[in-house]
Amino acid sequence: MPELRKDPVTGRWVIIATERAKRPSDFVREKVEIHGGRFCPFCYGNESKTPPEIMAYRPDGSARNTPGWTLRVVANKFPALGIEGSLNRQGEGLYDKMNGVGAHEVIVESPAHESTLAMLTPKQIEDVLWAYRDRILDLKQDRRFKYILIFKNHGEAAGASLEHSHSQLIALPVVPKRVLEEIEGSKDYFGYRERCVYCDIISQEKESGHRVIAENQCLLALAPFAPRFPFEMWIVPKEHQSAFEESHKQDYGELAAILKDMLTRLDTVLESPAYNFVIHTSPVPEALNSYYHWHMEIMPKLTKVAGFEWGTGFYINPTPPEESAKFLREAAVPAVAV
Amino acid sequence: MPELRKDPVTGRWVIIATERAKRPSDFVREKVEIHGGRFCPFCYGNESKTPPEIMAYRPDGSARNTPGWTLRVVANKFPALGIEGSLNRQGEGLYDKMNGVGAHEVIVESPAHESTLAMLTPKQIEDVLWAYRDRILDLKQDRRFKYILIFKNHGEAAGASLEHSHSQLIALPVVPKRVLEEIEGSKDYFGYRERCVYCDIISQEKESGHRVIAENQCLLALAPFAPRFPFEMWIVPKEHQSAFEESHKQDYGELAAILKDMLTRLDTVLESPAYNFVIHTSPVPEALNSYYHWHMEIMPKLTKVAGFEWGTGFYINPTPPEESAKFLREAAVPAVAV
Repeated sequence: MPELRKDPVTGRWVIIATERAKRPSDFVREKVEIHGGRFCPFCYGNESKTPPEIMAYRPDGSARNTPGWTLRVVANKFPALGIEGSLNRQGEGLYDKMNGVGAHEVIVESPAHESTLAMLTPKQIEDVLWAYRDRILDLKQDRRFKYILIFKNHGEAAGASLEHSHSQLIALPVVPKRVLEEIEGSKDYFGYRERCVYCDIISQEKESGHRVIAENQCLLALAPFAPRFPFEMWIVPKEHQSAFEESHKQDYGELAAILKDMLTRLDTVLESPAYNFVIHTSPVPEALNSYYHWHMEIMPKLTKVAGFEWGTGFYINPTPPEESAKFLREAAVPAVAV
Repeated sequence: MPELRKDPVTGRWVIIATERAKRPSDFVREKVEIHGGRFCPFCYGNESKTPPEIMAYRPDGSARNTPGWTLRVVANKFPALGIEGSLNRQGEGLYDKMNGVGAHEVIVESPAHESTLAMLTPKQIEDVLWAYRDRILDLKQDRRFKYILIFKNHGEAAGASLEHSHSQLIALPVVPKRVLEEIEGSKDYFGYRERCVYCDIISQEKESGHRVIAENQCLLALAPFAPRFPFEMWIVPKEHQSAFEESHKQDYGELAAILKDMLTRLDTVLESPAYNFVIHTSPVPEALNSYYHWHMEIMPKLTKVAGFEWGTGFYINPTPPEESAKFLREAAVPAVAV
């Protein structure tokens, strides 16, 4: 009998198809491979082909928009939102609209065209995380923005249009619906129990251990109880932390290590699948709070979302998280030194 | 400047990228083609390869599970939910779960392997709609089910695993989140204005005309104000009707005509794209009400949903609905006789 499971934060139900449970080899997928050979605007020497540099890490002190950087942040050349202007909220009969004001930036994670994020050193990944933080802290000063989302599309099937490894940032004038559902669910839980729901999840998961994939001093990686997608993983700080950008210095090193470890396990178990990840953190106006807990959601792209999911907002997941956690936990991967 | 638009029912924001607006020919997509040649469990003579017939239209009075039918309904061979047993709601620490009880059926729309739904005659399409209604009325008698969803995946990119044209039905023990959002939004609007929000949308859309694609005596086809996907279309009854299965006899003929017309326009403008459609109707326990209005949502599969959408629940749509409505309205297609 399949199982219906409810996400304890958002109340979203998922169908866990326990009877036709799928193993890693059952998924038809295309391996993400880096081919190179084409012109790449994110490689050394092509700095003038992107919008001007917003920020870069340049250990050798080289000039802006020239080679020498180890990480580079630029505006998205085809931004979904425009950085200039005011919101200008308006009605149109019963409809509401406003200008699409926001920031859309690209974090080029390293100069090496052939390296995926999983292949970078822990130190390089830590730099990527510091870059996320630096950009969030800068954009938080712009009072028009209510939410800043960090996300990554890896592989064409996950929506990446360039193969050179990069992440993206979008600053938004409204708190997006999916985040709002988590915030509201967390507030409700806090109102009732005076505890953070994610802190309670972490304590229950550590106790049972079935869905734990890995753990280090600061963070826990797990398969959530009611995952939308097969092999979905969350990385959560073990102590209560409401905002990613407020993490302690040591946390970034630990997060880099566990993120590299998780992406390596994913590549090993599922043969380098396409994936998306997002960082869910508190909205800008309420960054420090007791009810919400930032976390990273990693979603390999293994199944197609079809009419049922669009019609219901309710997902069919053919792999129970207890099984995906076991495959990922037992994968033979080298230990990552922090 | 891109525009942020809010769906008046659910409150979901979408980004309409007006500056990089895409025309039909800008989308990279695979044309849905029917190849045939492989074994097909939905063709005449293979009736024993599906679970037994739940219902069929057989003008010649032929025996169950034999050829002669014009439309056939069977259980899904790989159901997402199981039909037997009780819900058995349980806790697991802070988590909630229950048995995945539900019905999962397949409506084989015609015996012709090579005919898409758009290619069937209006009379055949009307039969498909009557079959939806017959199955809903039957399943509504099972008190375990709170919601019955009709949906269709057309083409592999939209999640169809068999090419012989079919729709699906899922009966669920809970009202799915996405429907609940529409129901709750409609109730809020009704509480405030004592009018159905969809009735108000229809009246505003008919007045402005920008987003109207086609209209007949009973139904209106339009591009919604805040569509998630390029070329998304809604078909809505012009008079208030809360439940699909409660439509008048004449409505099914009119719906068949406008649905054939819309799918033909889609095939003409976008060169036979993959698509999904869903029928959103009222939950079983509150089928007749003043606040909710059933409708059909047709979503061509033209863009990839990526990290941003998963992270936010907020969509980037590169084609303003005023433009998609114009392309669809002006497509040269033969008139459909009711």
